[in-house]
Amino acid sequence: MTGFVSFVSSGPGDPELLTFKAADRLARADVILFDDLSSGPVLGHAGPQAELIAVGKRAGKPSPRQDHVSRLLVDQARTGVRVVRLKSGDCGIFGRLEEEITTLERAGIAYEIIPGVPSACAAAAMAGIPLTRRLTARRVQFITGADVTGDLPQGLNWAALTDPEATTVVYMGKRTFPRLAAELIRHGLPPRTPGLLAEAVSHPQQRLHRASIAQLAEMLSHQHSDQPALILYGALAGGAPEGIPESVPGEGD
Amino acid sequence: MTGFVSFVSSGPGDPELLTFKAADRLARADVILFDDLSSGPVLGHAGPQAELIAVGKRAGKPSPRQDHVSRLLVDQARTGVRVVRLKSGDCGIFGRLEEEITTLERAGIAYEIIPGVPSACAAAAMAGIPLTRRLTARRVQFITGADVTGDLPQGLNWAALTDPEATTVVYMGKRTFPRLAAELIRHGLPPRTPGLLAEAVSHPQQRLHRASIAQLAEMLSHQHSDQPALILYGALAGGAPEGIPESVPGEGD
Repeated sequence: MTGFVSFVSSGPGDPELLTFKAADRLARADVILFDDLSSGPVLGHAGPQAELIAVGKRAGKPSPRQDHVSRLLVDQARTGVRVVRLKSGDCGIFGRLEEEITTLERAGIAYEIIPGVPSACAAAAMAGIPLTRRLTARRVQFITGADVTGDLPQGLNWAALTDPEATTVVYMGKRTFPRLAAELIRHGLPPRTPGLLAEAVSHPQQRLHRASIAQLAEMLSHQHSDQPALILYGALAGGAPEGIPESVPGEGD
Repeated sequence: MTGFVSFVSSGPGDPELLTFKAADRLARADVILFDDLSSGPVLGHAGPQAELIAVGKRAGKPSPRQDHVSRLLVDQARTGVRVVRLKSGDCGIFGRLEEEITTLERAGIAYEIIPGVPSACAAAAMAGIPLTRRLTARRVQFITGADVTGDLPQGLNWAALTDPEATTVVYMGKRTFPRLAAELIRHGLPPRTPGLLAEAVSHPQQRLHRASIAQLAEMLSHQHSDQPALILYGALAGGAPEGIPESVPGEGD
């Protein structure tokens, strides 16, 4: 008797940005393993039978080791129950999904992946901007600003990251952005390139802050808020050419 | 009296991959402007009062001009009603959202953007793979394979697109992929790089086909199905290193 694991994307945080399919899997789960970032109101969709287990991964905080989480998944599934592994945003983007999938495959446990709203898409939507624009922003890319040790990853592709025709979204990059921005500028990206810092996207405490990448780097070298954040940069991050909406929900100063 | 426009992301097609917020906006809309790709079961969330207007944009088919769609949006909103502009996937990704936003801003009409599940995320999920992997696939990028004339866009960033550490998703690229693949290979991407052709993602007629980029290019130089499709390439497109799920829903031969 083996169970089944559903990797469920919780979206950026607002429970209204959950999909029907994700809510269905939460409602039918016997066990839900969740990270800090995917907790809160979204868990309100869990049924009364569900056992909730916090596995607490969060950038910059001590957290269970990845192999512990993977083993817990296997152990739970082997009891024959329906397991949901809840991950924030879209679980296929910087969710370390592949490591957990690999463990399940080695153990012969079946799984499915329920896609969701990536935090990057939500950040752009909340700021009133698209991620692509015909002719001038024809490529969108997501990178991580922190490797497993919390440092800026080695071997970044500077030709990709300094492309004036791309919109770039940096995940988990708040602490390393001053160094990333310095490298981007050294590799030719203009310091006045528009940037957008999006903290706690779609949560009640959401804050959006628009500034050039140089200004954001300066600001983030002093700021130590521990809200999860994304940083967008590229021409679109400054708003549509005709201006941005006058009132942006939750926008910072 | 001015109305209000909600840009609503319909997700990849499966109505279960709609968000609660998108369903709410559809249920309360007086008028819904939709593309071919976002039609079907998702429109079942519309209320009985809603007027449904097909604006029929679809790659490779004759379609209303973009300025006609934008003008229709403004005209409808000016009657004081709630307008939903429904777009497939996440509306901020290759949805020509910015052109419609700009028209609304010029007309002084307020709007909101409801993010959704990008087709790229759904394609990866249906194939049982993540879009990123720690250390080896640390950047994910989305590009379009067709400009407004249907041709391969000019001035592509080959350093970005031939990066062995990226996962790339090509939107609207089925017809131009033979040329794109030839250019990628000429710029150094190995012909055996894993690829995934994902047609009609999350629809009942979904087909997934795994092959090298060279094989996909050869196949697509002969095939003329008009199903909407995405093409993923990069190390992850071949499946997790320990293998892919034995049974993938809707997978082709």
